[in-house]
Amino acid sequence: MLDAEAALAQASADVGIVPREAADEIAAACRADLYDPAALAGEAHDAGNPAIPLVRALTARLSPAAAAHVHRGATSQDVIDTALVLVARRTLPGVVADLGRAADRAAALAREHRTTPMAGRTLLQQAVPVTFGLKAAGWMTALDAVAASLADADDRLAAQLGGAAGTLAALGDDGPAVAAAFARRLGLRAPALSWHTDRTRLAALAGTLAVAAGAGGKIGLDIVLLAQTEVGEAHEAGEGRGGSSTMPHKRNPVAAIAAVAAGRRAPGLAATMLACMGHEHERAAGAWQAEWATLPALLGVAADGAAAIADALGRLAVDPARMRANLALLGDLPLAEAAVTQLTPALGRATAHAVVEEACRRAVAGGTSLTDALRAAGHRVDLAPERYLGSAPALVDAALQARSSVGTTDA
Amino acid sequence: MLDAEAALAQASADVGIVPREAADEIAAACRADLYDPAALAGEAHDAGNPAIPLVRALTARLSPAAAAHVHRGATSQDVIDTALVLVARRTLPGVVADLGRAADRAAALAREHRTTPMAGRTLLQQAVPVTFGLKAAGWMTALDAVAASLADADDRLAAQLGGAAGTLAALGDDGPAVAAAFARRLGLRAPALSWHTDRTRLAALAGTLAVAAGAGGKIGLDIVLLAQTEVGEAHEAGEGRGGSSTMPHKRNPVAAIAAVAAGRRAPGLAATMLACMGHEHERAAGAWQAEWATLPALLGVAADGAAAIADALGRLAVDPARMRANLALLGDLPLAEAAVTQLTPALGRATAHAVVEEACRRAVAGGTSLTDALRAAGHRVDLAPERYLGSAPALVDAALQARSSVGTTDA
Amino acid sequence: MLDAEAALAQASADVGIVPREAADEIAAACRADLYDPAALAGEAHDAGNPAIPLVRALTARLSPAAAAHVHRGATSQDVIDTALVLVARRTLPGVVADLGRAADRAAALAREHRTTPMAGRTLLQQAVPVTFGLKAAGWMTALDAVAASLADADDRLAAQLGGAAGTLAALGDDGPAVAAAFARRLGLRAPALSWHTDRTRLAALAGTLAVAAGAGGKIGLDIVLLAQTEVGEAHEAGEGRGGSSTMPHKRNPVAAIAAVAAGRRAPGLAATMLACMGHEHERAAGAWQAEWATLPALLGVAADGAAAIADALGRLAVDPARMRANLALLGDLPLAEAAVTQLTPALGRATAHAVVEEACRRAVAGGTSLTDALRAAGHRVDLAPERYLGSAPALVDAALQARSSVGTTDA
Amino acid sequence: MLDAEAALAQASADVGIVPREAADEIAAACRADLYDPAALAGEAHDAGNPAIPLVRALTARLSPAAAAHVHRGATSQDVIDTALVLVARRTLPGVVADLGRAADRAAALAREHRTTPMAGRTLLQQAVPVTFGLKAAGWMTALDAVAASLADADDRLAAQLGGAAGTLAALGDDGPAVAAAFARRLGLRAPALSWHTDRTRLAALAGTLAVAAGAGGKIGLDIVLLAQTEVGEAHEAGEGRGGSSTMPHKRNPVAAIAAVAAGRRAPGLAATMLACMGHEHERAAGAWQAEWATLPALLGVAADGAAAIADALGRLAVDPARMRANLALLGDLPLAEAAVTQLTPALGRATAHAVVEEACRRAVAGGTSLTDALRAAGHRVDLAPERYLGSAPALVDAALQARSSVGTTDA
Repeated sequence: MLDAEAALAQASADVGIVPREAADEIAAACRADLYDPAALAGEAHDAGNPAIPLVRALTARLSPAAAAHVHRGATSQDVIDTALVLVARRTLPGVVADLGRAADRAAALAREHRTTPMAGRTLLQQAVPVTFGLKAAGWMTALDAVAASLADADDRLAAQLGGAAGTLAALGDDGPAVAAAFARRLGLRAPALSWHTDRTRLAALAGTLAVAAGAGGKIGLDIVLLAQTEVGEAHEAGEGRGGSSTMPHKRNPVAAIAAVAAGRRAPGLAATMLACMGHEHERAAGAWQAEWATLPALLGVAADGAAAIADALGRLAVDPARMRANLALLGDLPLAEAAVTQLTPALGRATAHAVVEEACRRAVAGGTSLTDALRAAGHRVDLAPERYLGSAPALVDAALQARSSVGTTDA
Repeated sequence: MLDAEAALAQASADVGIVPREAADEIAAACRADLYDPAALAGEAHDAGNPAIPLVRALTARLSPAAAAHVHRGATSQDVIDTALVLVARRTLPGVVADLGRAADRAAALAREHRTTPMAGRTLLQQAVPVTFGLKAAGWMTALDAVAASLADADDRLAAQLGGAAGTLAALGDDGPAVAAAFARRLGLRAPALSWHTDRTRLAALAGTLAVAAGAGGKIGLDIVLLAQTEVGEAHEAGEGRGGSSTMPHKRNPVAAIAAVAAGRRAPGLAATMLACMGHEHERAAGAWQAEWATLPALLGVAADGAAAIADALGRLAVDPARMRANLALLGDLPLAEAAVTQLTPALGRATAHAVVEEACRRAVAGGTSLTDALRAAGHRVDLAPERYLGSAPALVDAALQARSSVGTTDA
Repeated sequence: MLDAEAALAQASADVGIVPREAADEIAAACRADLYDPAALAGEAHDAGNPAIPLVRALTARLSPAAAAHVHRGATSQDVIDTALVLVARRTLPGVVADLGRAADRAAALAREHRTTPMAGRTLLQQAVPVTFGLKAAGWMTALDAVAASLADADDRLAAQLGGAAGTLAALGDDGPAVAAAFARRLGLRAPALSWHTDRTRLAALAGTLAVAAGAGGKIGLDIVLLAQTEVGEAHEAGEGRGGSSTMPHKRNPVAAIAAVAAGRRAPGLAATMLACMGHEHERAAGAWQAEWATLPALLGVAADGAAAIADALGRLAVDPARMRANLALLGDLPLAEAAVTQLTPALGRATAHAVVEEACRRAVAGGTSLTDALRAAGHRVDLAPERYLGSAPALVDAALQARSSVGTTDA
Repeated sequence: MLDAEAALAQASADVGIVPREAADEIAAACRADLYDPAALAGEAHDAGNPAIPLVRALTARLSPAAAAHVHRGATSQDVIDTALVLVARRTLPGVVADLGRAADRAAALAREHRTTPMAGRTLLQQAVPVTFGLKAAGWMTALDAVAASLADADDRLAAQLGGAAGTLAALGDDGPAVAAAFARRLGLRAPALSWHTDRTRLAALAGTLAVAAGAGGKIGLDIVLLAQTEVGEAHEAGEGRGGSSTMPHKRNPVAAIAAVAAGRRAPGLAATMLACMGHEHERAAGAWQAEWATLPALLGVAADGAAAIADALGRLAVDPARMRANLALLGDLPLAEAAVTQLTPALGRATAHAVVEEACRRAVAGGTSLTDALRAAGHRVDLAPERYLGSAPALVDAALQARSSVGTTDA
């Protein structure tokens, strides 16, 4: 809020309606350490918003000459909304950077493991094999997408200056010029109209933040599942991480869990922002006030989630041997689809399907492999998982190629 | 789902791995009227998804030659996800068009009423005057923004084809080619990777739909408030609309209310989509299934909301005389800010402020106008509301100008 | 809605203000099959609610003598709100029964497996052992709790009759008597006041439904996790359930997944109901209308979830041998806490802790068991998991005892 | 958390497994001012939860003899969950008291204004008259209901003690006795089973908190609407409340607005708690961690909302003259229903309805009153609003009577 007041004073001086010395004096007094947040919060309760006591306290620190120009032409909502946007501006680049780091690490994993076979798992049951690189490429794609969305959202952040009811009337004919200078001073967009009660920008930002948190949460969930004692295909490496002195075997994936937690907190906060779009006329009686704590909380959740997933991916240790061991748990039964494919040229698709289906039944009943059951029926197949990876490596290459062609940094 | 199966068959024929006659036969059988949705729903319960019984029923209608090629290379999720996207594709253009119509009407109101004075209202208390055109311009800006976001979202809709676990393994080396042809056939984007468990696209769409519903809800709320018996500045015109035979005075703003209702339903549905991003590995056990009813419901809510706000704005009758009468309710007290502005050149800002504050107290205590109270103190001001509209008309012009320069249609 | 109209007519006859023959004629016309829902929905759009066209259609079917008494004293909201409550009344007993069946089955599992050891899992990492009976007892307790809450909610369902604005004015002095008779006819509570815009009852019901769905979702999630290929400790038994002809090894836990999905859909719907409590004055302009589709959807989700978890538990097949095998995966390392406990009497707690911690390190480093590492250091412990189940069996007994003492049915 | 550790030590001494002196020493060290929350938060990040560094810091302050007994038998979740419950315990009585004060004030308003006529408003259009007492009685009923629900929830708060995986194994056979003593020490319920991953209690509490916030929000909304400049039937009295030096006419209903804002924040937070019920096995990997900030936030929102609505009602100034003036805005047209009622004995209901409908049309067209239009048609009616209040006063009496009979305090 103080940055908004300082920018307003300087913008007014830029336009020539406030003396530069007054603006400089105001700006110099706009230092957070000069004020007592707890006292201001107490006064805000009676005033109905925190800008009123802050402007009072700011004014009290100034010479009469400067005091006359504080907050000129603005209303409380101009200051509070601009402050909300500035909080977003200070948060988003870090979130985008963390997501970018996470995506870079996922890209490196995708490249390294483009042909590392592991069990595909649908409904948490083993299905046909995939490669760990393909899984990592999917993480990368999602992370790049949400990073790009948040960078766009950051770029669209707009200053708020409309005066008491959006007409800038207290600034006479200079309103639009001051509003433009105000936005320029803050490095924010200058919208055609002030957006006192048009919350589409903030609501869209909230949605984008929740999608970003959700994307990190999905990856965190995959890591938690891979790190299960009974799966053991990946874990978060690091001295003393998530350990326990009397549980020496535990390697709790604490960063992945933090990413999951962020993904779970975001939707409710985003829903609040979305449900608060109904701002009455020129200033809302409740919906606006409900945003004050919600948007910062959501920004914090998204930031925590991005940092956590970057951390989790950064320290992810992958165990290809365990992946292969798990792939062998069910023998070659998950490869039945491959058997159909191999027998189709000779038998036709329908017959191939029937033959494999029957062999599957016999294999399960007899405790043998599908390969043996088919051989007993006179058919030869090769059901090594690494020969049924389909287009996984090609898809990884395509995703990495698409990434580099749009210029996304890739470590 | 049938459209997805038909497109898959034809795409496979395009690539040369399925005979064209088989594809044609499959496509001909992909007509919804040939199937019994209730029976399929019953079987879906046991199967775990609706694609399994549908493929079974589709296969049963075909010659053996064609039957061998049904659903080839695909998994249930390919069909269901693509079907979800196709529902979005069929819904979004209509939503965008309705929002565009609403924005056009708001633009016309903004132009017509750029200087029509009315009370600005903050926290539902009268504040300084605005123009109805400025209010309508704010509506227009929000509607244009959400229409553009939804058009973008529509443009980004992507087909889903990944096979059992995303590797397209059952299609041998032809997977990527079939996936590309499949998307081309459906007029959807062909993503680098299948997005079985990367729900960023759907979640972002959900957020955008909720923002659109919320934007309409805000406008609907403004209309409901303007239509209050005690305010009466606007109403929805139309024979028999929202009337009642023994309540002949009532003019219920039913379309605006429907827009408000849509704005209230959307956030919870969007939150469900956001909270369902945590899809495990290659297919989710619960989060995916929860999307099936939720996204269509949200599309329906957004569509209802867009149609309702277009309807409400289309029939909005505005009463400038009542606006002016309401402006006079508090006399010239809401113009105190204007008095300060007018006295500042002569008195300096600080003194002007003190003089007006004192006059306000006297006016309230004495039941006189602020103008009279100031005159009694030796100061002359002109507090006609139409001379304190600030930059309202200029802002309206700027918003309309910005609109036409980006080529948005404007009736 | 028709049931509400019929009850209103009969209640008015009970009080003596409508002739019984007219009431009987009205009631006879209140059969859903006589009306065209699609046509009514169309008219509802313009009228603003579905009760207006329904009353019109109902009236049109009656003799003039009876027609004069249709809907007498009531407003649309009386009919729609009462109808919402009747939908709840028809749904809740089935949900309570399904939850009761599920709880009975969980109780049976708890009793059967009160001492069956399995790995406790925290953060999805193996921790100290539990018994499957203890896990099932936790499920039982939660299911009993939500069933009891929903039974209470069902018992509190109240009829709505207030007339145009809640004063029952059109009924003269007979209003309260008619309202009481109306509630009696429907088997609903008769509240002191009509609750047109006091939505605490419905919002509390929504919360309770979501808690019930969430309780089922937690159990479903546990089952999905137990059914993982790599864990394999439980599965849903049943011919052709969740199977696949070419994935013969898959045993998709489709009922558990449906319970998870219900648990994921409910919170957003409940949030909508909670966010819709802000009903303006005597009838809401948007918040009420948003409830119409939301509460039935939530009732459906809760019903689906309850049926699914009853189904999942009913067919749950448990594999104690696999539980024991999984318990052995980490050797005796998860029993370090037991080692401390056993050594404490001799060494004191602090020294025992230090000794075990050091032995843990050596065991992990040397690939030996903790027992051996301790023995090498001169300490003897017995780290069989079945001797470190703590109070698990006693807790199961206590939970079953608490259940039977409150008279909950237990199969 | 420190209170939980102290209670655990003392409970263990009560049961005889920890020396009393050690317990006393531990308890004495459990003072929040001895620890550095920021430092603990930093360590919590790596440890995965805040209990681990707290126990470490607590232990470091103790003699070796006492240190050996810190946190004995407990796991981090026991401490954190119990701490969450203790936060609820400290918050809820104040919330219940504020809601009770608000209800008392609503009861006083209901009694005072049981016959004060005002416009009933449906869809924000004037409908038949109500009394302000009836509106206040509706507020009272809702407030009493949510206060009672929260008092029940407070009464059901349960301690958490289960040890590493819920078996209390580290306490040998003393587990249940320690758990009982632990609950007793804290004044909390001792559940049959620990509820590590059964979140039904917390989720139900969250729902109840949101319903309470929503009930206050509805009343706040009514007050905001009554306080509109154009309505002016009530305002929040108080020196300098929500005022503005140059907006001397504004009387912003800041407390009511705060209640509305609380009502808008609660649903999203409650949805997060509901969506976090899916706790895996014996400790959740993400869903639990997401609760830590959410439940306290929701408790705070409910507390703010309760305090705000008590404040708003406590200072509510009602203007019966303005109510009557607003009632006259539409003349006697809103009384058409009364006219039908008065003419029914003579004309029969159907004819009476037709006659009044025709007269309504003429009155609107001719700009006359309905009384005059009916008189011109030969019918005499008395359409004074105070004679068409229906059962409003009786309903107020019944609600007040129901209140006093259940012993709710009434000022």
